[in-house]
Amino acid sequence: MSFPQPPARQVIAVDMDEVIADALGEHLFRYNRDFPDDFPEPLTRADLHGRRLWQAAPSDRRTAIDAYLRTDDFFRVLRVMPDAQRVLERLQSRYDVFIASAAMEVPTSFAAKYQWLAEHFPFIPSSRIVFCGDKSILRADFLIDDNPRQLRVFRGEGIIYTSPANVNITGYRRVDSWLNVEKLFLD
Amino acid sequence: MSFPQPPARQVIAVDMDEVIADALGEHLFRYNRDFPDDFPEPLTRADLHGRRLWQAAPSDRRTAIDAYLRTDDFFRVLRVMPDAQRVLERLQSRYDVFIASAAMEVPTSFAAKYQWLAEHFPFIPSSRIVFCGDKSILRADFLIDDNPRQLRVFRGEGIIYTSPANVNITGYRRVDSWLNVEKLFLD
Repeated sequence: MSFPQPPARQVIAVDMDEVIADALGEHLFRYNRDFPDDFPEPLTRADLHGRRLWQAAPSDRRTAIDAYLRTDDFFRVLRVMPDAQRVLERLQSRYDVFIASAAMEVPTSFAAKYQWLAEHFPFIPSSRIVFCGDKSILRADFLIDDNPRQLRVFRGEGIIYTSPANVNITGYRRVDSWLNVEKLFLD
Repeated sequence: MSFPQPPARQVIAVDMDEVIADALGEHLFRYNRDFPDDFPEPLTRADLHGRRLWQAAPSDRRTAIDAYLRTDDFFRVLRVMPDAQRVLERLQSRYDVFIASAAMEVPTSFAAKYQWLAEHFPFIPSSRIVFCGDKSILRADFLIDDNPRQLRVFRGEGIIYTSPANVNITGYRRVDSWLNVEKLFLD
């Protein structure tokens, strides 16, 4: 006698920065704190429509803006995106969820990212965490990511998570929030 | 007018410890140095036939043996497996090669592993490095790994790289050296 095999669960890979972690918020905070005279009012997400922070700031700020990413604490102190914890925990009941961060772009970020995940997403086992570069290497049915470059090389269905820099990108299903993700995958 | 697309290259994922990095050699060195009285002669790879180091040593050594992996320098000082550099560089000319280490099992190892790769395999771009847990997440045609647990969950063809612990494992094509890998993929 043999028992029927449960159907294989679909795999969802989830990016970190700008998807579950508010990296841009911390970037804006540090930029506004250190360069208060660049603009009459502090820069906000709304000012970045279609641009990255370094593209919106004066061009001689790029080095300073990039350097924030390489400070020890940058990726450790990020705020969690609204509803990400609750929805990811729900997703895990129906899907195999992996966190997949292009951490190789900032090799100093590994430890902080790992600790941040352990603090804020303790229900995700470390066996389901991936620090990679090019996300073409992921075998998953879906990738939720804000970066169109990664969505292009990914071989499953890419789902674009809205960030100020990507608002003009088309060609993917788009989610604006974790409530959107919940509706898409769990309704 | 359009040019014909080149055929997609096959993807080979390559494990680090016991495949390109001699982690067991360093483990044996530290164990023999710190516990010279456990055995009449220093332990060697040949003594481990079918066993891991902690299984071959007295049972009360397990904590100490595991602790070596969490020292800052362990993964930084490993010797490179013979011929791994030359053959991997050759493989890159015909395949998309990714390094895929289950680094999540030892989260303190990220920085050392990254620096070790940069020193010994500078021709591998960081975009092709993956630190993961469960290798079921890899989308690759081949995985060269010594760990049967990872080969079992991988969805492409697993190729077992011989290490003392896995000599009794069957069910995979087996390579004993990088010269074997060269013959398998490049002849």
